[in-house]
Amino acid sequence: MRLATMKDGSRDGSLIVVAKSGASFASARSVAATLQAALDDWTHVAPRLRELAEALERGSGAQPLQDVELMAPLPRAYEWIDGSAFINHVLLVRKARGAEPPATLWSEPLVYQGGSGVLSSATEPFILPNAEWGLDFEGEVCIVVGDVERGTLADQAGDAVRLLMLANDWTYRNLVPAELAKGFGFFNSKPTTAFSPFAVTPDELGAAWSGGRLSLRLHCELNGKRVGCANAAVGMHFSFHDLIAHVAKTRSLTAGTIIGSGTVSNEDEAVGVSCLAELRTRETLTQGAPQTRLLETGDRVVIRMLDATGWNVFGTIEQEVTAP
Amino acid sequence: MRLATMKDGSRDGSLIVVAKSGASFASARSVAATLQAALDDWTHVAPRLRELAEALERGSGAQPLQDVELMAPLPRAYEWIDGSAFINHVLLVRKARGAEPPATLWSEPLVYQGGSGVLSSATEPFILPNAEWGLDFEGEVCIVVGDVERGTLADQAGDAVRLLMLANDWTYRNLVPAELAKGFGFFNSKPTTAFSPFAVTPDELGAAWSGGRLSLRLHCELNGKRVGCANAAVGMHFSFHDLIAHVAKTRSLTAGTIIGSGTVSNEDEAVGVSCLAELRTRETLTQGAPQTRLLETGDRVVIRMLDATGWNVFGTIEQEVTAP
Repeated sequence: MRLATMKDGSRDGSLIVVAKSGASFASARSVAATLQAALDDWTHVAPRLRELAEALERGSGAQPLQDVELMAPLPRAYEWIDGSAFINHVLLVRKARGAEPPATLWSEPLVYQGGSGVLSSATEPFILPNAEWGLDFEGEVCIVVGDVERGTLADQAGDAVRLLMLANDWTYRNLVPAELAKGFGFFNSKPTTAFSPFAVTPDELGAAWSGGRLSLRLHCELNGKRVGCANAAVGMHFSFHDLIAHVAKTRSLTAGTIIGSGTVSNEDEAVGVSCLAELRTRETLTQGAPQTRLLETGDRVVIRMLDATGWNVFGTIEQEVTAP
Repeated sequence: MRLATMKDGSRDGSLIVVAKSGASFASARSVAATLQAALDDWTHVAPRLRELAEALERGSGAQPLQDVELMAPLPRAYEWIDGSAFINHVLLVRKARGAEPPATLWSEPLVYQGGSGVLSSATEPFILPNAEWGLDFEGEVCIVVGDVERGTLADQAGDAVRLLMLANDWTYRNLVPAELAKGFGFFNSKPTTAFSPFAVTPDELGAAWSGGRLSLRLHCELNGKRVGCANAAVGMHFSFHDLIAHVAKTRSLTAGTIIGSGTVSNEDEAVGVSCLAELRTRETLTQGAPQTRLLETGDRVVIRMLDATGWNVFGTIEQEVTAP
């Protein structure tokens, strides 16, 4: 099933179930007020949401989706933990800023704890206060987990995956080097992350979701031109199961925690990129300097993922960069 | 007023108001179900909580506090952002691991994004799965803020402070160097943080709360022996207002975000320490090697703060380190 959050004036919005067509929805408030409430009591709530979703496919309770505004599926989450599971991305962005890859590159996932108190919808404009901060997008796949006990191992982690989503992990490239030099990780360099309109249960993905990796192409466009269609399983050295085990090594996670793959990145240059930093590094390597500029007011970023049948699984992230 | 969260079987517990004596409480569920709900609608809720608190001082609705179990004031929060505002602490812990202080030491606060999905009560045992990880405590002061707009400046930030608490920011010292070397900040090295039983409004602190700093001593004990009584304003180079401005530079914060001071640390060695890493560094400097071991199963850590009248403002953090 596909779940989403309808804007209703409250902080956490209203949970809705979205039809496969993407044209209609049904309110799920009779089952759970919000997506977080559903995740808090998933075992009881999920079967009832599934009934709603099946009834909706028969037209029951259907309302036009175009009449409502969506928020991020979780407009605020208790944790947003972002991995960097595609080694090719790590190598390219570190090369770009003249930094060495970590010694544990292949043995231990890189993850950072992101801000999760304010998360952006898929269509909210990105307000850019200062172009010198060097805005870039990052197309990613994420999972939303249920409760995860401290010490959960990778081969036990699959059951914890409740939902999948896409993310645009906006990054201020020019704030990264000084921030990482301080040693405490990203902070100002990671403004509000945006998420796809729909969060979907793993069964919607069929065989494409396997072993904690999602083998579908992530389509990224900038100003109407495709810049990337990398496969989100190829080169994902650490699976989502590995990421769960790593982040749960020393503490437990609450239901509703979001875990990201990091920028989807394939070695094959022909599939393009899911962020501009990689493109700029490649340009530097072949042409001596970046040819593609970072983002400015007026730029439009589109991120979506189609399955083998051409179905736009998660809906479309489509954001314009605007002035304050 | 003093607020706390009573364990009731739910994930977020029940909001209660606690008497000045610390002996009794009154349920606040008629006003707001949880502390997060109160913070979400603070302008309307706070005056009604104040009425409850005043009635409680007259004995109205009073129940014995000893009959109930408390959770962390926010058993899960949307963000837990921890600063490192005491320069003396930064210098000592970096010296301990042979790392240089950052170039921006005096001009820009160090902050890291902590895990906030599972937060520990003041009396929950700390389960130590592996003593080789090198467990240490860190005594801190924290604020809980209301909504903070992106771009809020330090001189505008004071109004956002809703509550103050204490924290024990448990740290696995032996996991820190490898983790920081990866460049993405703390993760496994920061297990579940514990908070004081009570969160108090700034007015409870009188003149001790001024300019975004809390001028009271933080008492830290290990196995019944005092190890520190550092003043939480002395040497706090960046005030809480500075910390708010820094973390809101590129994104907004939601109500209920917790911001920590970092380990309270004074240059005056006579006042002791609020974590063992500092003590061990001083021992290394004077005696060539640390004399004090890190924590093991059976150790007990106590953290509290008394005001000028001897009132135990936030209640006591008292945790035992236990085996899994």
